[in-house]
Amino acid sequence: MAESIRGRLSDLRRDLHRYPEPGWCEFYTTARLVEELEDLDVDEIAVGAEAYDPDDRMAVPAADELDEWFDRARDRGADPGLLERMAGGNTGVVAVLDRGEGPTVGLRVDIDGLYVEEAADGDHAPTAEGFRSETGETMHACGHDVHMTWGLAALEAIEERGFAGRLVVFFQPAEEVSGGGYPMAESGYAADLDYLLAAHVGLDHPTGEVVAGIERPLAMCHVDATIRGTAAHAGKAPQDGDNAIQALGTAIQNAYGIPRHADGMTRVNVGRVEGGTASNVVAERVEAVAEARGETTELMEYAKDRLRRTFETAAEMHGCAADVEVVSESPRADSDPELVDVVADVARGVDGVDAVVPTADFGASEDATFLMRRVQEAGGLASYLVVGTDHPTSHHTPTFDVDERSLETGVEVLAGSILAVAEDPP
Amino acid sequence: MAESIRGRLSDLRRDLHRYPEPGWCEFYTTARLVEELEDLDVDEIAVGAEAYDPDDRMAVPAADELDEWFDRARDRGADPGLLERMAGGNTGVVAVLDRGEGPTVGLRVDIDGLYVEEAADGDHAPTAEGFRSETGETMHACGHDVHMTWGLAALEAIEERGFAGRLVVFFQPAEEVSGGGYPMAESGYAADLDYLLAAHVGLDHPTGEVVAGIERPLAMCHVDATIRGTAAHAGKAPQDGDNAIQALGTAIQNAYGIPRHADGMTRVNVGRVEGGTASNVVAERVEAVAEARGETTELMEYAKDRLRRTFETAAEMHGCAADVEVVSESPRADSDPELVDVVADVARGVDGVDAVVPTADFGASEDATFLMRRVQEAGGLASYLVVGTDHPTSHHTPTFDVDERSLETGVEVLAGSILAVAEDPP
Amino acid sequence: MAESIRGRLSDLRRDLHRYPEPGWCEFYTTARLVEELEDLDVDEIAVGAEAYDPDDRMAVPAADELDEWFDRARDRGADPGLLERMAGGNTGVVAVLDRGEGPTVGLRVDIDGLYVEEAADGDHAPTAEGFRSETGETMHACGHDVHMTWGLAALEAIEERGFAGRLVVFFQPAEEVSGGGYPMAESGYAADLDYLLAAHVGLDHPTGEVVAGIERPLAMCHVDATIRGTAAHAGKAPQDGDNAIQALGTAIQNAYGIPRHADGMTRVNVGRVEGGTASNVVAERVEAVAEARGETTELMEYAKDRLRRTFETAAEMHGCAADVEVVSESPRADSDPELVDVVADVARGVDGVDAVVPTADFGASEDATFLMRRVQEAGGLASYLVVGTDHPTSHHTPTFDVDERSLETGVEVLAGSILAVAEDPP
Amino acid sequence: MAESIRGRLSDLRRDLHRYPEPGWCEFYTTARLVEELEDLDVDEIAVGAEAYDPDDRMAVPAADELDEWFDRARDRGADPGLLERMAGGNTGVVAVLDRGEGPTVGLRVDIDGLYVEEAADGDHAPTAEGFRSETGETMHACGHDVHMTWGLAALEAIEERGFAGRLVVFFQPAEEVSGGGYPMAESGYAADLDYLLAAHVGLDHPTGEVVAGIERPLAMCHVDATIRGTAAHAGKAPQDGDNAIQALGTAIQNAYGIPRHADGMTRVNVGRVEGGTASNVVAERVEAVAEARGETTELMEYAKDRLRRTFETAAEMHGCAADVEVVSESPRADSDPELVDVVADVARGVDGVDAVVPTADFGASEDATFLMRRVQEAGGLASYLVVGTDHPTSHHTPTFDVDERSLETGVEVLAGSILAVAEDPP
Repeated sequence: MAESIRGRLSDLRRDLHRYPEPGWCEFYTTARLVEELEDLDVDEIAVGAEAYDPDDRMAVPAADELDEWFDRARDRGADPGLLERMAGGNTGVVAVLDRGEGPTVGLRVDIDGLYVEEAADGDHAPTAEGFRSETGETMHACGHDVHMTWGLAALEAIEERGFAGRLVVFFQPAEEVSGGGYPMAESGYAADLDYLLAAHVGLDHPTGEVVAGIERPLAMCHVDATIRGTAAHAGKAPQDGDNAIQALGTAIQNAYGIPRHADGMTRVNVGRVEGGTASNVVAERVEAVAEARGETTELMEYAKDRLRRTFETAAEMHGCAADVEVVSESPRADSDPELVDVVADVARGVDGVDAVVPTADFGASEDATFLMRRVQEAGGLASYLVVGTDHPTSHHTPTFDVDERSLETGVEVLAGSILAVAEDPP
Repeated sequence: MAESIRGRLSDLRRDLHRYPEPGWCEFYTTARLVEELEDLDVDEIAVGAEAYDPDDRMAVPAADELDEWFDRARDRGADPGLLERMAGGNTGVVAVLDRGEGPTVGLRVDIDGLYVEEAADGDHAPTAEGFRSETGETMHACGHDVHMTWGLAALEAIEERGFAGRLVVFFQPAEEVSGGGYPMAESGYAADLDYLLAAHVGLDHPTGEVVAGIERPLAMCHVDATIRGTAAHAGKAPQDGDNAIQALGTAIQNAYGIPRHADGMTRVNVGRVEGGTASNVVAERVEAVAEARGETTELMEYAKDRLRRTFETAAEMHGCAADVEVVSESPRADSDPELVDVVADVARGVDGVDAVVPTADFGASEDATFLMRRVQEAGGLASYLVVGTDHPTSHHTPTFDVDERSLETGVEVLAGSILAVAEDPP
Repeated sequence: MAESIRGRLSDLRRDLHRYPEPGWCEFYTTARLVEELEDLDVDEIAVGAEAYDPDDRMAVPAADELDEWFDRARDRGADPGLLERMAGGNTGVVAVLDRGEGPTVGLRVDIDGLYVEEAADGDHAPTAEGFRSETGETMHACGHDVHMTWGLAALEAIEERGFAGRLVVFFQPAEEVSGGGYPMAESGYAADLDYLLAAHVGLDHPTGEVVAGIERPLAMCHVDATIRGTAAHAGKAPQDGDNAIQALGTAIQNAYGIPRHADGMTRVNVGRVEGGTASNVVAERVEAVAEARGETTELMEYAKDRLRRTFETAAEMHGCAADVEVVSESPRADSDPELVDVVADVARGVDGVDAVVPTADFGASEDATFLMRRVQEAGGLASYLVVGTDHPTSHHTPTFDVDERSLETGVEVLAGSILAVAEDPP
Repeated sequence: MAESIRGRLSDLRRDLHRYPEPGWCEFYTTARLVEELEDLDVDEIAVGAEAYDPDDRMAVPAADELDEWFDRARDRGADPGLLERMAGGNTGVVAVLDRGEGPTVGLRVDIDGLYVEEAADGDHAPTAEGFRSETGETMHACGHDVHMTWGLAALEAIEERGFAGRLVVFFQPAEEVSGGGYPMAESGYAADLDYLLAAHVGLDHPTGEVVAGIERPLAMCHVDATIRGTAAHAGKAPQDGDNAIQALGTAIQNAYGIPRHADGMTRVNVGRVEGGTASNVVAERVEAVAEARGETTELMEYAKDRLRRTFETAAEMHGCAADVEVVSESPRADSDPELVDVVADVARGVDGVDAVVPTADFGASEDATFLMRRVQEAGGLASYLVVGTDHPTSHHTPTFDVDERSLETGVEVLAGSILAVAEDPP
């Protein structure tokens, strides 16, 4: 790849890095993607509700948060007509290249940022080189800026190199909250995929290493639990209260005690709690944000059911009622060995790749698994690959950054793999 | 009392009602009180740190909250010079009438409002009659507007009627958070009191009823507990976390289980909790707001010590550290029968009083008890009296209101009792 | 009272002291009482089921415990015919003196011992003087040996001194487990009582002091809770278990957290737990022995209901079922002032009484309250009096003992009071 | 193998089945083994303390339990001289065959029974065929009767077939409580083993299947926790108690909430609890029997350390002290592939073996791992093999039984493997 191309990839990634938006609020980001896509020779561009059923979205934030980011995108100069098509949080875009006979191949990249305030000191490269987040409160701290760059550049490369078949690139919103994978998987665009590739940068793999297909992502669900009781004066009439905080204490204690399962790993966490008003009032209402994970979808369901029962009975014990809402979830899906082999072969031939790991455990969760399962259930093959990068600190921290050499590597591995399956279907 | 006086009392009370400020933020209120006091023939006016040692204050809010209310008071037109004397939250004022030989009598009234949003509908008299709170977020929902009016009007009445002795009126800030009683009690102004009267309106006693001296207020302390642990990814590395929410759950459960005490009533409450960030992160930090009460000061201390131990060991159990800070507290103090008799006698002679209850249980907590104990320990007498009022709903609710007939009754009972003890010391 | 009488009282008390039997197992004791009663000129003697309905008994021990004590009583020489009338644990006896026109007066004394092993060293008077418990495992550690002596001697004294009316003496079994008060209260013998006296020795009152009528005994209930779950191998299949021990942990924690009540004192205790089999098995079954008390019967009911809900929901949370059985209970009943006055007057005239306390708090529970309420509900008067004694250590400890001067004092106060109400009904 | 031999194996197994003894109480069993060994041409027989250091024993029962089984063994006719060598619970025996130049091979079989009452109905073959357990309370419900038969018969087969090297057969006590593996591993007899084989029957593998070497046994520890507090009257003075049951509730709840670990499976269980005396007494003392397991020894240590901290801080929270004693433990050890290959090759040639599984997960714990690690750390090879058997119900249940065809299969696989490594060391 020529130096100029490298520079273009870097410019694009840095531009996207400057304006990270949270899940279902990627208004400006989507508009930027559409702008880029319109410069390419793409056959079809479906924005928001054109690509998926908005009712399938999960973990959509409240209207005021949507509105705020919508307004900010408009103020930053996003095309008003495009913004209109995303009204209400229907962000994301699907781009299609339709080039005659051949398999249908999907590529999924995610586009949302995180509520992490990016490091401002000079040791942090994005700050030193002038592309630090400009939102003040959000950051591409998980590398989705890289993923979007990969998606655009792989599309361009394939278009340029020629390709017989149909390529569908999913620029998926709301991965961090497991909210966008499901609507994309339910979309008509995902209906007839013969192959699906998804990709992530880093994940503790160094520059030069490629994992051809990960295994064992944890199935996961996010849960919002609200416990409603009855307020009372804690000094004068404690017996008149139905103490939501006491119920919460019971629920927390027992949630972590949900039995381990012989079939594999489970996880439970209550990650945030808030409730009650003052020291002298028996708390009327508390909210907890929790999650359950499992090595398989069944194990996640097991933990989720127990978590629900725990909150409900803890509430009942204290005369309260619990409302346990599953905000979002993602299943487990493993990479298919046949497709993993293709990716591994391609990766071995890519400049700068010095280690190809056939497969590795994922250890966390990803809602690309909805798309993978959709494809696999219809008889297709899927693989979720990792392109290593030297990252100075962990994902999701204020000082996360990538080695930009991974930009080109990712494009080559993805474009090469797509072309390979089109030419010689595994 | 002439109709015109009644009208003046009502006007004053309504004016004060319009601008309730929270504890240690009573900048505008204090300025208004000083303005009124300057119109009276008072011998000494001590504002804020002139009246007490600021280091003795308890439950002082954070600087930004102080600043906000300070600025609002200035914007509303409070005298800048006065405001300067209150900088940093040194609100409240002590007024002295020094009229020759005779006993030193203290009168304590409290001046702070509550973070309750006042009812806006027409059924609520202050709204219907145009004196609803104008702050948008706070309310005189406990009748301290009435108490201040009593303090000013009793001072005026005594000045007018003539009096031999020294009268010290404490306009005390921050009663609702038990923050202002201690500095007032430690003040030099409280050093040589022969008698102390404190008063409350309402408390479920109807218009026309006076309780000459309450008994058995609960001793109380407010506690802020912070639990600090270690964040970790709840899916990838739960064992690396020191889970502050799990520690909180343990602390809540065990706080309510602190053993009952044979010597009398105790109370424990965890009234507010907040902490953690997201469902997939082991919580690094949580905060809880709690309280302990007891029928005696010793019982409160017992419950407080156990509460501290509970938080500290719960934190230790989960590898966390707990910081348990006693934000404020108030002891128990009972009314002295000799002084109660004086008040009862006076009350029986006041127009509009149709029932005098010698004494009644208080059931809640009050930091006037600091002043009462100071006086009692120095050999003086104290009484905390209640002037009944028909109140449509409970104290501390958005629709609380008083029967303004209680304004005059309160003034007459207080001024009459002060004059009585001056003339014929019990 | 003559020295010889004093000696007789002491001999009788020491004889009874030697053979303490637990609740509903007082076979030998009852036989001894009947033997004594037959020596007196008594008009009616009702043993066991002749006195009450066995179905009304509460807290009856298991058959093997009953059998063991039955056999021991037989081996010790109790009359076989008498024993037969007590088969199945129908112990206790009611004796009646029917002497013509006059009020019906009841006297209740309790007869059971405790599972406390009596001190064997020489500092302990019963050991030094040769009347230590001979059972090896039980002890009259609460003074019921004294109470029985009072009952017999008062009966004798009244018979001798002459009396117009009907005297019913209840020698009640199973007071310590709150099991015998209810059947005695439901008995026909309790139906038409105009007055009832019950009495206790000691309770931290010294020799020479008499409390004429106690107040505020705590209402109480004993509860047996069984939690049933599903066993599973804790290593291989923890998820297959429904963990009764985990449910128990939740129940314990939350039982102690049952909210305090503004109406007065409540108590909750889980005093014994047992369950599970081995470290590697998820526990299938646990049992807990608990109690709830309250300053009033209503408060006890409040605590009992919450305790039940706590066990049931804790079990449900862990997939288990809880069976919460109320084994026995006793209500609150206070002494009637009119009868207290009579007792106080009599006590003031008794030799050796140097302090008469009209009334005092009881602080614990007593199932004599069933009898008291029965009488009070029928319009009669009841009083529960205390005859002080210097006791070296606390009730219910291995070194408890009494000052035998209290024997005569008790007889005189009880007999005197009964004669007084018969002569001059209050 | 001739029919007569088969019959002999069956007779031997059934004889051993009749008298199962718990860990460290295998007095009769050891005597029977020695008797059999003395009939063989064995070079060395070390009984109890001759084989290991008694101080290395773990989970030794109390003296009265040891004494009871000692007396029963004597009454059943065990040789008094032999019994004397086992006094104090030094059961088990090591037998050595020393036949010149060649490798040193160890074979470990376990000999203890379980406290399970064997099924008495006719559907249960041991009952129907007259070899049901005669102890009334214990049972060979895990197949150790088969293991002992294998050990004796393999020794005999090797002796008969000829062998160059040293064979050490460990008849290990107390496997079920993880108590005997450690002393055997520390024994001089385990010092120079080039190879070690251990074997188990069944484990859900059918007759005809052999697993050549298991993997991933869970490391495990047994823990006894005692919580000591202070008793108090629950009604009169709950505040004077330090409530051991309340501390236990806290410990249970938090023990199950010990965080899952990313490195692999952990398990925690509190399997038995007992404590407190009566409903009206704050519990002074409780005992809990617990365990921790882990997929690796490090994970078990992690869970064990947390379990200890949980009990200690729970006790501290309630003013109690916890004594947490590790009664026994076993590490993880995996079978060595080189030796697994030998066993697999041999097994494929054994009559009646129709499926050889190279390796399988174990899923539970085994203290043979102490011996395996000792050998592996010294550079030797170890394998733990499973000989399948059709068993009607699960191990550790009253109706467990084996298919006796597995007796011969086990002998052939074990003897064959030992001879194979001696002839052609892997």
